[in-house]
Amino acid sequence: MIKVLFAAGDENWQTYEAPLTKAFEDRSLSIDLSTAHPAEDSDYIIYAPVSDLKDFSPFTKCKAVLSLWAGVEKIVGNLSLTQPLCRMVDPGLTQGMVEWVTGHCMRYHLGIDEALASQNGQWTPKTPPLAQDRKITILGLGELGTACATTLAGLGFAMTGWSRRKKSIAGITCQFGEEGLTAALESAEIVVLLLPNTPSTENTLNAETLAHLPKGARIINPGRGTLIDDAALIAALDHDQIAHATLDVFRIEPLPANDPYWSHPKVTVTPHIAAETRPSSASEVIAENIARCESGQSLLHQVDKAAGY
Amino acid sequence: MIKVLFAAGDENWQTYEAPLTKAFEDRSLSIDLSTAHPAEDSDYIIYAPVSDLKDFSPFTKCKAVLSLWAGVEKIVGNLSLTQPLCRMVDPGLTQGMVEWVTGHCMRYHLGIDEALASQNGQWTPKTPPLAQDRKITILGLGELGTACATTLAGLGFAMTGWSRRKKSIAGITCQFGEEGLTAALESAEIVVLLLPNTPSTENTLNAETLAHLPKGARIINPGRGTLIDDAALIAALDHDQIAHATLDVFRIEPLPANDPYWSHPKVTVTPHIAAETRPSSASEVIAENIARCESGQSLLHQVDKAAGY
Repeated sequence: MIKVLFAAGDENWQTYEAPLTKAFEDRSLSIDLSTAHPAEDSDYIIYAPVSDLKDFSPFTKCKAVLSLWAGVEKIVGNLSLTQPLCRMVDPGLTQGMVEWVTGHCMRYHLGIDEALASQNGQWTPKTPPLAQDRKITILGLGELGTACATTLAGLGFAMTGWSRRKKSIAGITCQFGEEGLTAALESAEIVVLLLPNTPSTENTLNAETLAHLPKGARIINPGRGTLIDDAALIAALDHDQIAHATLDVFRIEPLPANDPYWSHPKVTVTPHIAAETRPSSASEVIAENIARCESGQSLLHQVDKAAGY
Repeated sequence: MIKVLFAAGDENWQTYEAPLTKAFEDRSLSIDLSTAHPAEDSDYIIYAPVSDLKDFSPFTKCKAVLSLWAGVEKIVGNLSLTQPLCRMVDPGLTQGMVEWVTGHCMRYHLGIDEALASQNGQWTPKTPPLAQDRKITILGLGELGTACATTLAGLGFAMTGWSRRKKSIAGITCQFGEEGLTAALESAEIVVLLLPNTPSTENTLNAETLAHLPKGARIINPGRGTLIDDAALIAALDHDQIAHATLDVFRIEPLPANDPYWSHPKVTVTPHIAAETRPSSASEVIAENIARCESGQSLLHQVDKAAGY
């Protein structure tokens, strides 16, 4: 019986006990999962910084510390941590982002808001164009942007992607650099922001670039709050240059209750839910790593403690 | 120059002139498209029953009559019609259905209605499950149901399909027959109705079958109005057995303004827009058929006038 200590807080225990148990069972791993194993008996630790656990030295049998979080900056410098440390690389995070972006693109594409707002007894059929006639641009072609662009292209949308450096992705019109940005915006009916947060991406959407979009374009931001000049976006919404925006990330989170985005009739605020670690897929990753270690294979996503990640 | 007479009504002319012209140009067909070619000069007729054209005998050069509609019951018995008749088989109709069903499944999956209704300054993140943990059942595995099921499975949803006779589709749990219907309903968080309108499918969702669904299930009906016992559905909504329904088709269309569906807080009515012939793809079909005929190939979708379809 492999003893796995869950040291990631009470709230996560509520969330993770069932999916971890299922993931272990699916692999026929004989595991005793508990929040109360004595240190000297524990074969593995599932860890998050919300735990009280600070001293790893009594865990003399422990073969690996498996972080529930992608970021390990709060534990990697712990000198008592001599065991191998693995960070979380959750395929569910990418999948969740793809689903969120796909759902909100479909919502704009089909005019679902308008449908919900017109339950008034008026039968006025208006067929949306097909996806092949709907132009969507994704700014940012990293792992998340590429996954979203590929899925939307698979649904038939006319996809353009933009990245700072030249890329090539099957089925996507790829633009790059300053000139490419203007071209990528000029035809976009829907723009999805999935750029990283760097000095050069700050205010990528500003008064000038918003003006390059066709009138009535829609904006979806699950990337970073800093990508948008907020005052410029609100002005563009007020002047009908932009028809609607769905924003999941903000410069200040939680978004303050008096922020104008909350009350703007052309803005949907969602509370940073597009990219979340998912218990079911994260549990799969942890179970897989234990299974690998038990069969003598190398651990996945092991942290280089000197490099810090 | 090929002379194509557009005899499908003024309203369709507004809709179809541009996409037909584009489809002809894309194939480098040298076509003179008009609503006013003399009968004896017309090489092809694009036809819909809304046209005044009833006598096809003066069209002595005409190589084919190309129906804009799938149904040809209003013209197939016309004795003056000696030219080949082709019905419309529009890939855009299937594609449009897939998009509509996908969009409304994503809407329920992500809780988009709830997001739109909670723009109140409260930051309360609640991450939806991944698609792999969302169970969707499609009743009906004809062309439309299969296309929708396959696309949703591609997005990661846990798909079940049900048909009267046994079918097998990769990636879909296929149920069939009476017993299979109960099994298909018992786990469905979202049910999509894409059965044909036959005596045996009438009231497929009734008080008994609605009770087989897990409490809080959602219903999407882009199929036929007759598939649902309306009184039973409203009762199930009122008792919270069903959380929400999105209905695109009804026993009487347009749905009367005083129908209880319009005002029900748990129902979204859409005006029969899920399955529509699309001008762009229908124009492609017509251009393709003219191109085939001009190069000596057989016409696609030619109607057997004796059989009537």
